[in-house]
Amino acid sequence: MGKKVSIAVIRRLPRYYRYLSDLLKADIKRISSKELSERMGITASQIRQDLICFGGFGQQGYGYNIETLYSEIGKILGVDRRFTTVIIGAGNMGNALANYGNFKKRGYDLIGIFDISPDRVGKVINGLEIMHMDKLDDFIKKNKVDIAILTIPSQNISEVAERVAKLGVKGIWNFSPQDLHLSGNVIVENVHLSDGLMVLGYRIRESELKGV
Amino acid sequence: MGKKVSIAVIRRLPRYYRYLSDLLKADIKRISSKELSERMGITASQIRQDLICFGGFGQQGYGYNIETLYSEIGKILGVDRRFTTVIIGAGNMGNALANYGNFKKRGYDLIGIFDISPDRVGKVINGLEIMHMDKLDDFIKKNKVDIAILTIPSQNISEVAERVAKLGVKGIWNFSPQDLHLSGNVIVENVHLSDGLMVLGYRIRESELKGV
Repeated sequence: MGKKVSIAVIRRLPRYYRYLSDLLKADIKRISSKELSERMGITASQIRQDLICFGGFGQQGYGYNIETLYSEIGKILGVDRRFTTVIIGAGNMGNALANYGNFKKRGYDLIGIFDISPDRVGKVINGLEIMHMDKLDDFIKKNKVDIAILTIPSQNISEVAERVAKLGVKGIWNFSPQDLHLSGNVIVENVHLSDGLMVLGYRIRESELKGV
Repeated sequence: MGKKVSIAVIRRLPRYYRYLSDLLKADIKRISSKELSERMGITASQIRQDLICFGGFGQQGYGYNIETLYSEIGKILGVDRRFTTVIIGAGNMGNALANYGNFKKRGYDLIGIFDISPDRVGKVINGLEIMHMDKLDDFIKKNKVDIAILTIPSQNISEVAERVAKLGVKGIWNFSPQDLHLSGNVIVENVHLSDGLMVLGYRIRESELKGV
């Protein structure tokens, strides 16, 4: 790779990856930035700019070789590597994520689910028995868990995040509405579901103004 | 506003909005793009570029007036307007979203929840009784529902999406892993939870390569 790729570009890569995967499934071998632009709703110049960050796999008059591009983006995203994950918080969101099939396909193996509520501990979700939080520390250390997915209420988020960070997880995927800012080396991705809804609201309002 | 703002900038606005809201709560009156940059982890030049799209509210040597900026971004995002929403699919994800407090605060009122399963219909989530899909058409027309939030399996997604589009909803927020591409005027936002996880995986891998 050589040069530093901006996080804004990185955030678009999973989307390219999904689209390219669909094209491969449809047995399409190559595509121009113009065609990809029409499919994805990103400008062709943005696509060219994004993809040139990775060595510019496009060729004049030919377009992009989909298989190469898919494989290169996959490498950059690290899909050749598997991550172990645990879900902490077996409420509705935890349950929904535990049953979400795409994560495994993308390299993320769920190996444990934890909760504190006696009503939940012992129940089975997607083949995994929910464990009590008392067992969390040993489990994370023993299994060298890479990522903790936090689906717990905001009031407990900092405490649990600090705890898993100390135990050596490398990343935290935070679904509580409160952003986490941790010191140290642990990487945090905060999920903000309402951001997507606000973008939808903006687009609706914009289309109304245009009188479409 | 005048000029056309790119969707990439729009997608960052909810994030600015959240950060500015936190600053206002902390009683901070103004901020430089440098400080905002440090807090948000976006480059200062990106922030200046983004915000200039809306008339450039920053002043040399003063920075941004937080209250003005917050209010202007809010206007652009349409938070002064309320949207009515229904959730279709009362499984784990539907339940999680129905209980998510932030949507109401941002202007999105949940007024109905629908499902097809006899086990779910009649149960109450967050004060709303789950209705059978048989009642969907009348409900959407009578209440002029703006947004349908689809938390149903991929195999039913196209059919239900076409149905709500015909009934006149303006937007669809799609949580199924399968992207929706609808003809007509309905605006679709597809949620891809695994994209966020892949970005987390990338960042972990990147920090390992750096040997942090």
